[in-house]
Amino acid sequence: MIQITLIQIDNYGPWTVTPGPRAEPDLQTLQSRLYGDLEREFGAHGGIVFFNRFDNLIAISNGMDYDDHKLIQDSIRNRYPITISMGVGSADTAYEAQKIATEMIQKGGGAQSASRCEVLNIDSLVDDDDSYVQIAHIDIDDVTGLLTDVETAFDTSIKVYEVLNALMVELSQIGGLCFFIGGDNYMAPSNNISDDILRDALERVDTKTGVRLKAGIGRSKTPAKAADMADIGLEDIRAGKVDDTVIIYDDRK
Amino acid sequence: MIQITLIQIDNYGPWTVTPGPRAEPDLQTLQSRLYGDLEREFGAHGGIVFFNRFDNLIAISNGMDYDDHKLIQDSIRNRYPITISMGVGSADTAYEAQKIATEMIQKGGGAQSASRCEVLNIDSLVDDDDSYVQIAHIDIDDVTGLLTDVETAFDTSIKVYEVLNALMVELSQIGGLCFFIGGDNYMAPSNNISDDILRDALERVDTKTGVRLKAGIGRSKTPAKAADMADIGLEDIRAGKVDDTVIIYDDRK
Amino acid sequence: MIQITLIQIDNYGPWTVTPGPRAEPDLQTLQSRLYGDLEREFGAHGGIVFFNRFDNLIAISNGMDYDDHKLIQDSIRNRYPITISMGVGSADTAYEAQKIATEMIQKGGGAQSASRCEVLNIDSLVDDDDSYVQIAHIDIDDVTGLLTDVETAFDTSIKVYEVLNALMVELSQIGGLCFFIGGDNYMAPSNNISDDILRDALERVDTKTGVRLKAGIGRSKTPAKAADMADIGLEDIRAGKVDDTVIIYDDRK
Amino acid sequence: MIQITLIQIDNYGPWTVTPGPRAEPDLQTLQSRLYGDLEREFGAHGGIVFFNRFDNLIAISNGMDYDDHKLIQDSIRNRYPITISMGVGSADTAYEAQKIATEMIQKGGGAQSASRCEVLNIDSLVDDDDSYVQIAHIDIDDVTGLLTDVETAFDTSIKVYEVLNALMVELSQIGGLCFFIGGDNYMAPSNNISDDILRDALERVDTKTGVRLKAGIGRSKTPAKAADMADIGLEDIRAGKVDDTVIIYDDRK
Ligand SMILES: Nc1nc2c(ncn2[C@@H]2O[C@H](COP(=O)(O)OP(=O)(O)OP(=O)(O)O)[C@@H](O)[C@H]2O)c(=O)[nH]1
Ligand SMILES: Nc1nc2c(ncn2[C@@H]2O[C@H](COP(=O)(O)OP(=O)(O)OP(=O)(O)O)[C@@H](O)[C@H]2O)c(=O)[nH]1
Ligand SMILES: Nc1nc2c(ncn2[C@@H]2O[C@H](COP(=O)(O)OP(=O)(O)OP(=O)(O)O)[C@@H](O)[C@H]2O)c(=O)[nH]1
Ligand SMILES: Nc1nc2c(ncn2[C@@H]2O[C@H](COP(=O)(O)OP(=O)(O)OP(=O)(O)O)[C@@H](O)[C@H]2O)c(=O)[nH]1
Ligand SMILES: [Ca+2]
Ligand SMILES: [Ca+2]
Ligand SMILES: [Ca+2]
Ligand SMILES: [Ca+2]
Repeated sequence: MIQITLIQIDNYGPWTVTPGPRAEPDLQTLQSRLYGDLEREFGAHGGIVFFNRFDNLIAISNGMDYDDHKLIQDSIRNRYPITISMGVGSADTAYEAQKIATEMIQKGGGAQSASRCEVLNIDSLVDDDDSYVQIAHIDIDDVTGLLTDVETAFDTSIKVYEVLNALMVELSQIGGLCFFIGGDNYMAPSNNISDDILRDALERVDTKTGVRLKAGIGRSKTPAKAADMADIGLEDIRAGKVDDTVIIYDDRK
Repeated sequence: MIQITLIQIDNYGPWTVTPGPRAEPDLQTLQSRLYGDLEREFGAHGGIVFFNRFDNLIAISNGMDYDDHKLIQDSIRNRYPITISMGVGSADTAYEAQKIATEMIQKGGGAQSASRCEVLNIDSLVDDDDSYVQIAHIDIDDVTGLLTDVETAFDTSIKVYEVLNALMVELSQIGGLCFFIGGDNYMAPSNNISDDILRDALERVDTKTGVRLKAGIGRSKTPAKAADMADIGLEDIRAGKVDDTVIIYDDRK
Repeated sequence: MIQITLIQIDNYGPWTVTPGPRAEPDLQTLQSRLYGDLEREFGAHGGIVFFNRFDNLIAISNGMDYDDHKLIQDSIRNRYPITISMGVGSADTAYEAQKIATEMIQKGGGAQSASRCEVLNIDSLVDDDDSYVQIAHIDIDDVTGLLTDVETAFDTSIKVYEVLNALMVELSQIGGLCFFIGGDNYMAPSNNISDDILRDALERVDTKTGVRLKAGIGRSKTPAKAADMADIGLEDIRAGKVDDTVIIYDDRK
Repeated sequence: MIQITLIQIDNYGPWTVTPGPRAEPDLQTLQSRLYGDLEREFGAHGGIVFFNRFDNLIAISNGMDYDDHKLIQDSIRNRYPITISMGVGSADTAYEAQKIATEMIQKGGGAQSASRCEVLNIDSLVDDDDSYVQIAHIDIDDVTGLLTDVETAFDTSIKVYEVLNALMVELSQIGGLCFFIGGDNYMAPSNNISDDILRDALERVDTKTGVRLKAGIGRSKTPAKAADMADIGLEDIRAGKVDDTVIIYDDRK
């Protein structure tokens, strides 16, 4: 089972324009610092956070309980001009788990409700013995040679975001999720998705966007370990240790 | 004329896997902290930075000279395990300016060249008297009611990133750029693009993606001021002060 | 037993002047950011860190094991231009525990040894069942009325640092430690020091420096909880709930 | 003339205990992050900030005007749960300038007044042509050999803070200031203090505390440049390029 936490800033839209619009560089600094801090807070417990939309961040939180989440919520309140609500859900697939987590947040009140403040709704936590996380670290072959060193920076970005969009749609249709992690790299929480199904999905994106994708897939009890396994898989593909575009490493045995 | 700085982390791909893959939560914290710091450094001089691909960031730097850039480059070297190279270009349109900035970086060596370190190539700086920045602050109508409070978090993200992709393609074809700034908000450096041409571009995206977009457009001598003007335009559209989906405010008179 | 971790930046002196002196504002930003990050990393496990000399930081780490420390060490390596070594010691008094922690660091090599890198020497960890932390939160009565609002800022600082110095000497002679935490506040890890002995020590400092000190004393299994207890004690003295300059709250029963 | 800005967090004491005491690790993270950010904001304009008491920070702000301070004040409001007030004063000596800056803050209301919020009182700014900053970078000879590598960490700190205290008293009596900048290093804004008078002051501290102090002294138009000059002086003393415990470098000619 995979456990996902949806982190939503309370009443952020109205706050950004009250009493008047706030300078955008300040909002960008606030949003990126909040993301960096949440990455540390979840990372200290073996979790991992993706920025998603910056006002709605998605974390994989296997192994973290109510108190772990509460400590983070309190710490953000003491250091930021905004507060955060969190919804936690567990399921067999990442898509399903984030669906439950979203419902937990929506149950606590709308994103712009002035009254909702620091909701912490947990549908269910994953038990230690059936805690299992699969993460695919997806990467474009030779983005440096094909794009970064030859095209304009923005044209390279258009292609990278086109691939991101295609991956988000493909993954969500097979129970997974996909997030941009910088450069030409994407991370896809993909519990219960076999390497074959994932390879097909990557190939469909290749066809649609004209790049060649590869992915290391990691399976472990905790999110950070799964990501580490996925990194190693990606390096082994790069090193030609395997003649495939996907490879799975599993440290749970 | 608009002045754009492309900021590229030196030899970042190899660094992320040397001596072995580095834990992803650490890379995400490093990348978001670097973005937040660069936003402060450029922001202190009235500039604004967009994270773009995190290893390649794009800033509007009207009014900033060689020494301003050098101070930032040295400060990052003293506080981060990586160094940054920068290319600076000026032109009538944002797309053209980033094209030149990219060439200045590529001229200094590839993104993965072990030898290139802290290049600072300036093609040309904008003179004070013809410094002019136009920024459109683009926003989806009622994302809260239509998506955030009703769909799952990831489905909302798919739509928001679909709109981002469509905007990036449309804007690049009319000489502009477009970046995601969180929530359902985008910022488009759009020098020399009239409100009519921009309104048409937004409507093409509406048709393609099924949302309704609005934009406040700001024109000023410095990037941060242009963004402030754009924010006010967006608020006035929201307040029904104008019956249009775009509005231009210009503080240069 | 109290468990203390000494965190020492590896070879920092030479690094600050190699290849040439680094701009002091950058070093101050680096040192304060490192302190803030280490506070989060230890804080996520219920610990607390004091900046001490910024290149040598002292943390109370009851409940944290080898892996917890290793994760922090790796994370700092991935995000900072410097690395850290750590020594861990446990004893009945805070002074004794930091003495052992210091020996663990010194055993690993000098503060300026080019070869010593990321030592992690643990003498002994505190077992859960005899984990006990006592922290006194010491505060000057009415610093605002006596100093901040009437004297020049620097004269107020001279008095506050004079009190700090006197407390450091007094506490170290009775097996404790004392650190500045901002404003007119100090925190003293003070295992095995009775309230009477502490009251006398505070009174000696009052006589020497001309201020009137009060302290809430917290006793708990973890450092952060002990600090919370101490805060409550301080508030209750302020509220006149007790007619004493020291008060002990203990949540271990 | 030297220009000094006193930065005071508005109503911080009450905020730290309202509605109840806030976890100390969070306050330490907030205070160190605020210091790091202010160092960047002032540093971007060639200034330098010292943490002083964390709730009252002291900056040398030669060359910075009302708008520069206002931008910083707004940015902190948009990103922190607290706001800051600032007082600015200029004078021939650092001690006198901070005295005026303090009066500007106190004029705006007490440190704990619920009503005072974001005061920005400027007594006078330094004109460009008589902008002059002298900073001494004071350092203890061989702290590594005498203390860090042989004594316990806390005993080394007692000696370093004893030296700090003595320097603060000595410098304030000759029109200067002195701040701790980590390790065994101190920085003393010391306009109008000759090298002879400074050498005598250091020798009095040597006698009182049993260490041997040396200092590079920098004179320039801006604070950061003066600090750079001071660093170079310190290195030249270390390298035996001069047989003295103080040396002055001046880049204004
Ligand atoms: N977040 C993250 N980004 C990475 C990682 N590895 C590489 N990157 C990013 O990817 C960019 C391109 O690096 P590579 O993918 O190694 O370059 P490439 O030219 O595509 O090389 P190949 O993928 O080996 O074909 C870098 O600038 C980084 O931004 C990683 O582990 N995590
Ligand atoms: N970066 C940035 N994000 C903003 C700004 N204003 C709003 N947002 C983001 O947009 C999200 C949605 O807020 P709104 O756009 O006000 O909500 P809405 O339901 O679409 O309301 P309308 O746009 O008024 O129809 C917020 O959670 C923020 O993340 C802004 O000025 N800058
Ligand atoms: N680190 C830390 N600093 C605090 C705390 N409480 C207050 N302070 C600091 O102490 C300064 C002065 O606040 P107070 O001690 O409440 O003010 P006071 O005038 O001395 O009031 P009394 O102590 O009630 O007599 C504030 O500006 C803060 O910097 C705390 O819990 N932690
Ligand atoms: N803030 C700051 N700290 C420094 C600087 N240089 C050294 N330090 C600190 O001083 C500590 C000791 O370094 P040194 O002063 O070089 O060591 P030392 O043994 O005293 O050597 P000498 O001073 O050369 O006799 C380091 O760990 C740093 O924390 C500097 O330029 N700025
Ligand atoms: Ca790649
Ligand atoms: Ca909207
Ligand atoms: Ca007090
Ligand atoms: Ca020294």
